[in-house]
Amino acid sequence: MSKLRKILTTTVGDVDSEILSFTVGKDTEYDLLLVEADCVGTAAHVTMLSKMPCRPPLITGAERAKVIAELVKIINEARRGTFRITTSDQDVHMAVERRLTKRLGAIGRKIHTCRSRNDQVAVDLRLYGRTQLTACADEAVTLALVLVDFAFRNRHVPMVGRTHMQPAMPSSVGLWASAYAESLLDDASLLMSIYEQNDRCPLGSAAGYGVPLQIDRQLTASLLGFSGPVHNVLHAGNTRGKMESLVLSGCGQVMLSLSRLAQDLILFSMPEFGYFGLPAEYCTGSSIMPQKNNPDVLELVRARAASVLSCGHCVSEIVRALPSGYNRDLQETKGPFIDGVLSTLSSLRAMGRIMNGVTVDERRLTAAFTPAVHAADRALEMAAAGMPFRDAYRFVKEHLGDLAGIDAAKAVAARKHLGAPGGLDFKAMKSRCSSIGKTIESRRQTADRAISSLLRAGSSR
Amino acid sequence: MSKLRKILTTTVGDVDSEILSFTVGKDTEYDLLLVEADCVGTAAHVTMLSKMPCRPPLITGAERAKVIAELVKIINEARRGTFRITTSDQDVHMAVERRLTKRLGAIGRKIHTCRSRNDQVAVDLRLYGRTQLTACADEAVTLALVLVDFAFRNRHVPMVGRTHMQPAMPSSVGLWASAYAESLLDDASLLMSIYEQNDRCPLGSAAGYGVPLQIDRQLTASLLGFSGPVHNVLHAGNTRGKMESLVLSGCGQVMLSLSRLAQDLILFSMPEFGYFGLPAEYCTGSSIMPQKNNPDVLELVRARAASVLSCGHCVSEIVRALPSGYNRDLQETKGPFIDGVLSTLSSLRAMGRIMNGVTVDERRLTAAFTPAVHAADRALEMAAAGMPFRDAYRFVKEHLGDLAGIDAAKAVAARKHLGAPGGLDFKAMKSRCSSIGKTIESRRQTADRAISSLLRAGSSR
Amino acid sequence: MSKLRKILTTTVGDVDSEILSFTVGKDTEYDLLLVEADCVGTAAHVTMLSKMPCRPPLITGAERAKVIAELVKIINEARRGTFRITTSDQDVHMAVERRLTKRLGAIGRKIHTCRSRNDQVAVDLRLYGRTQLTACADEAVTLALVLVDFAFRNRHVPMVGRTHMQPAMPSSVGLWASAYAESLLDDASLLMSIYEQNDRCPLGSAAGYGVPLQIDRQLTASLLGFSGPVHNVLHAGNTRGKMESLVLSGCGQVMLSLSRLAQDLILFSMPEFGYFGLPAEYCTGSSIMPQKNNPDVLELVRARAASVLSCGHCVSEIVRALPSGYNRDLQETKGPFIDGVLSTLSSLRAMGRIMNGVTVDERRLTAAFTPAVHAADRALEMAAAGMPFRDAYRFVKEHLGDLAGIDAAKAVAARKHLGAPGGLDFKAMKSRCSSIGKTIESRRQTADRAISSLLRAGSSR
Amino acid sequence: MSKLRKILTTTVGDVDSEILSFTVGKDTEYDLLLVEADCVGTAAHVTMLSKMPCRPPLITGAERAKVIAELVKIINEARRGTFRITTSDQDVHMAVERRLTKRLGAIGRKIHTCRSRNDQVAVDLRLYGRTQLTACADEAVTLALVLVDFAFRNRHVPMVGRTHMQPAMPSSVGLWASAYAESLLDDASLLMSIYEQNDRCPLGSAAGYGVPLQIDRQLTASLLGFSGPVHNVLHAGNTRGKMESLVLSGCGQVMLSLSRLAQDLILFSMPEFGYFGLPAEYCTGSSIMPQKNNPDVLELVRARAASVLSCGHCVSEIVRALPSGYNRDLQETKGPFIDGVLSTLSSLRAMGRIMNGVTVDERRLTAAFTPAVHAADRALEMAAAGMPFRDAYRFVKEHLGDLAGIDAAKAVAARKHLGAPGGLDFKAMKSRCSSIGKTIESRRQTADRAISSLLRAGSSR
Repeated sequence: MSKLRKILTTTVGDVDSEILSFTVGKDTEYDLLLVEADCVGTAAHVTMLSKMPCRPPLITGAERAKVIAELVKIINEARRGTFRITTSDQDVHMAVERRLTKRLGAIGRKIHTCRSRNDQVAVDLRLYGRTQLTACADEAVTLALVLVDFAFRNRHVPMVGRTHMQPAMPSSVGLWASAYAESLLDDASLLMSIYEQNDRCPLGSAAGYGVPLQIDRQLTASLLGFSGPVHNVLHAGNTRGKMESLVLSGCGQVMLSLSRLAQDLILFSMPEFGYFGLPAEYCTGSSIMPQKNNPDVLELVRARAASVLSCGHCVSEIVRALPSGYNRDLQETKGPFIDGVLSTLSSLRAMGRIMNGVTVDERRLTAAFTPAVHAADRALEMAAAGMPFRDAYRFVKEHLGDLAGIDAAKAVAARKHLGAPGGLDFKAMKSRCSSIGKTIESRRQTADRAISSLLRAGSSR
Repeated sequence: MSKLRKILTTTVGDVDSEILSFTVGKDTEYDLLLVEADCVGTAAHVTMLSKMPCRPPLITGAERAKVIAELVKIINEARRGTFRITTSDQDVHMAVERRLTKRLGAIGRKIHTCRSRNDQVAVDLRLYGRTQLTACADEAVTLALVLVDFAFRNRHVPMVGRTHMQPAMPSSVGLWASAYAESLLDDASLLMSIYEQNDRCPLGSAAGYGVPLQIDRQLTASLLGFSGPVHNVLHAGNTRGKMESLVLSGCGQVMLSLSRLAQDLILFSMPEFGYFGLPAEYCTGSSIMPQKNNPDVLELVRARAASVLSCGHCVSEIVRALPSGYNRDLQETKGPFIDGVLSTLSSLRAMGRIMNGVTVDERRLTAAFTPAVHAADRALEMAAAGMPFRDAYRFVKEHLGDLAGIDAAKAVAARKHLGAPGGLDFKAMKSRCSSIGKTIESRRQTADRAISSLLRAGSSR
Repeated sequence: MSKLRKILTTTVGDVDSEILSFTVGKDTEYDLLLVEADCVGTAAHVTMLSKMPCRPPLITGAERAKVIAELVKIINEARRGTFRITTSDQDVHMAVERRLTKRLGAIGRKIHTCRSRNDQVAVDLRLYGRTQLTACADEAVTLALVLVDFAFRNRHVPMVGRTHMQPAMPSSVGLWASAYAESLLDDASLLMSIYEQNDRCPLGSAAGYGVPLQIDRQLTASLLGFSGPVHNVLHAGNTRGKMESLVLSGCGQVMLSLSRLAQDLILFSMPEFGYFGLPAEYCTGSSIMPQKNNPDVLELVRARAASVLSCGHCVSEIVRALPSGYNRDLQETKGPFIDGVLSTLSSLRAMGRIMNGVTVDERRLTAAFTPAVHAADRALEMAAAGMPFRDAYRFVKEHLGDLAGIDAAKAVAARKHLGAPGGLDFKAMKSRCSSIGKTIESRRQTADRAISSLLRAGSSR
Repeated sequence: MSKLRKILTTTVGDVDSEILSFTVGKDTEYDLLLVEADCVGTAAHVTMLSKMPCRPPLITGAERAKVIAELVKIINEARRGTFRITTSDQDVHMAVERRLTKRLGAIGRKIHTCRSRNDQVAVDLRLYGRTQLTACADEAVTLALVLVDFAFRNRHVPMVGRTHMQPAMPSSVGLWASAYAESLLDDASLLMSIYEQNDRCPLGSAAGYGVPLQIDRQLTASLLGFSGPVHNVLHAGNTRGKMESLVLSGCGQVMLSLSRLAQDLILFSMPEFGYFGLPAEYCTGSSIMPQKNNPDVLELVRARAASVLSCGHCVSEIVRALPSGYNRDLQETKGPFIDGVLSTLSSLRAMGRIMNGVTVDERRLTAAFTPAVHAADRALEMAAAGMPFRDAYRFVKEHLGDLAGIDAAKAVAARKHLGAPGGLDFKAMKSRCSSIGKTIESRRQTADRAISSLLRAGSSR
């Protein structure tokens, strides 16, 4: 073991390679996705250290500039895919510190002053989470817009509304598609509520109990563009895992919207329905059956919804009965957290592409209207004419044969009240998309500006 | 089968009793908790019907008053525990309609005009959910206040901070207790964000496709004190199950806070620690060991956290791959929804009682400080004096024996930065409690005023 | 508090009613289902006590007979629904002991010698589990037989085989139905493997550490018809929860079979398919739509599969990170255990009734064969004639239009190899049903004989 | 796109790279672990094709030998880590077929005759599952033996038995350790029961509906060392996912044993207990606290138990409501399946290493005995002397002060009945280890011999 390795090592005894690989798990892989966040967090921490009123200074302004310049290089390498984390590094924190120490000598050995890997990984995951939350919310709004446009184009196309998967009542493609748009807008709002909870900085909590030096936690929070620090330092540590589970619960809500949309599309594009056509370029064939045209992307969205929900539940369970303070169990939340958010994001994108290519077969949609679909409407008309509804219901039930010859499009248009197939307020939907979109954009800009300004400090001095 | 039963029955063929019991499940039991919500929802619906510009009116003002008066009677019976739902009723909706029909004749047979059991149960669950969300948020804030007071009283009492359950750094009982207070305040905020999502009215969506008469969905929403209707009627139906899973995800976050608090109290009240004493009246003995004094309440909180998380996951999974529109699978979400929120509420209350009786043994807490607990502080002091932290870390590691004679209380007091044991802002915590408390109270008053005003219509005419 | 209550109470301090209700939870309800098991376990324990070579005897033969006679009365009351467990009893164990003490005085106060509620509830749940395991396995075999008969009757009826829900290859109703039969037979085998694991007696482990008197654990195991005792007494205690989770994993496998069968039936009975007709008496209507005929039972099976899986996961999680020895958390496993097994049993029964009434529409099944369904067969014929399969695949893909005029029934019959639509071995299936059925019956008889013999001791002396 | 690529491609339209990456997911990574199984499955299939009585033969004996020789090369490359699966291959099946086609031309284009990727992946996962099941069962027995030896060495060392984590009764280190040994033996038995369920061959089911040529499914099953084929071909396809969930349920049971063992070791090695010392080489330090010695491996086992349980639940849920026949959702079960079994295997190994290094501090274990630990024993002695147990219990409870001066070792030795600390049958435990070990070894040899014989066919001709 090299001298450098000895300095950085956190192992008490000599660990054999199997156990090392057991403890490191897939961290070297997942941590590659956290390099940028880790560098940014380190930049903020080092900047704060350089401003502490210590004599001699913990880190000088010039040292800080050197560290940040090197961090910028690491970020660029990570983006190019050339930065590596080895099993002996164990994690991104040690990989970055080792690199800084290799390039900058003693300066590198100073950067860990007043922090612990515990608050480092906590801030990394919040920075990563905030990027993914805005990305997911953004894609949700984008898909909602696609669905609203799709709904508007097909607002007059009749579609049998179903309950229990059975034909139920007159409805429209417009109602169907815009229902999913609204669902996704609810989800995007939820993600932004979760963003608020995530938007506080755990840095400075160190191992969960703070440090005996006068660090400035407000400053690091502000340098990183957070709305403020998590106050209690033990709470800052305890939110590890809990915050991930919260973000994943938001992702789970998104996946519930997508999964049902996928199920509808799989069902209604079966040849027996033929309501919708799926874009051929997103379908796949079979290795044995030459004729096949399978909705694989949609099936995977349906299955990945289960995976994302499981990721959330798994993280919650890992956290559930832990005593307070950091426990190594928390490492195990990283994989499901990252997998869950990335799977949500890619599912949103895939559904966007699919929806852009879905075709509508108005003929088959209209042909699917059987007379019985109008039964409830008939009973309601009789109720409007004065018969108690229960009596009208019974009457129609006994005279289902009398329902022939009703026009589907008219039945759809007749449902004019708020939110019904003939009463959809497309303007309000678009305006809701735009309003949530603005909130997302504003959060993203706040974060981006802070990071840009923080990293510029590396070039300025 | 009576004539009345025949009118109300929703069964196509004759169902034998085993299958009836299979389909009804535990609904007759759970639905007892929804009687009030169902009556209130019906009152709003009937009021709206009475204001529709139909000739003849669907329901007259006088009829509406009679219906509401009878609904008030039912609510009172439910509160006294004398209202019954039978297996042949199947659910609360039929039980209430049957009763109204029995007492008011043809008027009762009119109330289901322009609605379906689908939007009825959806509004019931949102009304129930809103009551439970404010109740849980309220109890969370109450417990947070208890913890803040506990923390303030013990802010100078040293407590070994732990990571990996091992002694780690100097900390205080104040930091420990207020960490949980902040966690619960985050949870209460989250519950109120979820309240906003829940705060829209699905009534008027009927079976998910609206109706061909000009109902006023804005009016029912407003009569029930919701912030507005869910716009798209299919979306209104599709949120069934999804909304429950969202509420349960909030409850899950609360339980994660409580479960870790319970785990800490179980651990630190073991005789080997003796930091805390648990109130004897909330502990139980053994059937075989005369000396036992067991923390059963805390163990149950720990286990129920797993149950509540499972409830949430179960509901999400039931919903996940359903096609759009109502599916009977959704009935199966009612049990976990109600069990989950009630378990959260009772756990919050139980923890409040426990925390009010926890005693602190300062002597044992102080005695637990071993010299090694101060190792990081020593390394940081050396770093402050100019040695790179990594070098100081290595030096202290090799001289752990030199750490004797450090005063625990002083070490705690030395951590003065924001949120550290010596830097806790109790005023800010109390003010946060009060601010969230006000939001909760305001939501509750809005809802209560609307319901009171709606039901008064039964006595006024 | 009465003197009696004082003797039996296990509470250290005075517990207020809210906390009592929190700790008791739904135990008074679930424990009603365990009365018989608890009485039987007590009969075995008391019989063993009466045979211990103590002077004076711990319990005399005459006392044992009195206790057993009273236990038989309790069992009969429980079967009639007249036995009660109150919140102040807390659980079945105390309710039974209280009753014995009330009727038999000092004898009742002796029966808890050498045992704890921990081994009592453990044996209760194993006795309950063994009854439910045989019941579920039995119903699974019964349903498998129904499916085999259904398959045999319809072995020549063509049915489009699907992958990705899309038409794929020629298949038959016989293949479809017997696939589920085999799945259920696998499940029944698994349940009987789990039976073997459950078939050991935890009695005598007391609180998990045994007792200092020379009890005979082999005897109690044998009196109760178990294959033997769990050896290590701490392990006997530690299997609490773990055994429940194992039983539920078996139930989960059954529900996976049922849920997919339900999904198929829901799908293929939609009017767009019309392959199968569901028995009207197991379908339900709508409260608003007079024409509806909904497959509610099947939808509930589909949803309850999610509930049963959640029950299993919840129990596992409650157990997961507990330290060894009894923890009160385990009480929380009782609800999901009982709900999960009962839900599995009732789902099996409901599906049996449904399958008995399913009708087959051969015309629509045959009409669903499009030429493309035969594409793979054509490519395979070409391969059989010498063209490499990949070349044949490509050729057929480019000439899909040439596939017209192929007879569905012939294509089905042509698949003659083992297990294919034309190569099903119905005799082997029936024989497998019979063989598993015999194993189940043999286990049940062993258990029943032991219990009968044990309880007869109450009348014989 | 090359001509070759065109032949193999299974895509209907041109898929853009983002969607391709979405559908492929992590398959290229996980499939590397299936290369050996896939080659072996292909060898069996090709052997069977070469024996079919077709004129001209589908594949000649010489062609078969060439294919198998190339498959052996691929296996060796995979073992050396040099075989690659690209995103354009999509999966291991296409990667292997592409390679065979590249090297052997038209012969490669023949191997897919009479099979589908559906039965290919099904057999791959069963072959992989069978290897992992024996490996896990084997490691479980190995760890059980370590624990039995540990228990035997420490059979007289007193250890306070706990319930509710509170001191309860006299016990021993021998009882504690051998409880986990027995738990693991139960688990190993369960894994071997699951092995029986897994031990049937799905090959020849093709896409779930068989083929119109006379393949010999009994032969492929036998060539691969399975106990026989899965009979019904649709059932063979439907077990995909279900079988994985079953294997994972067995892994979950193992993890429940390990997780509780880990929790005990974490707890009892805390300085406040000091019962056990953990091997320093498997502990890690802190990045900020020089004194730390953390039980990371144990914490990770505790957390990974939650992950493995989640993997199982996730797979079950993905399968739950799928219609019969292959659905692409099933691809999503591969990751959790492989992760879950590998995590179980590595956790078993890690715990074996830990247990081999655990030291026992008899002094601290003995010192932990407080007089109250003997309270139940005293009450039982009084009961043995004739006082009803409940009266003795109450008497001791009121005289807890009288319990001083009892010798821990004697109290342990006094529990002499079967399975109690003084009545453990170590010989029986060892013999059970040996018996299960033999079953495992026998299964492994059967499988290994079949595969060796199958692959030798590549060199022999």
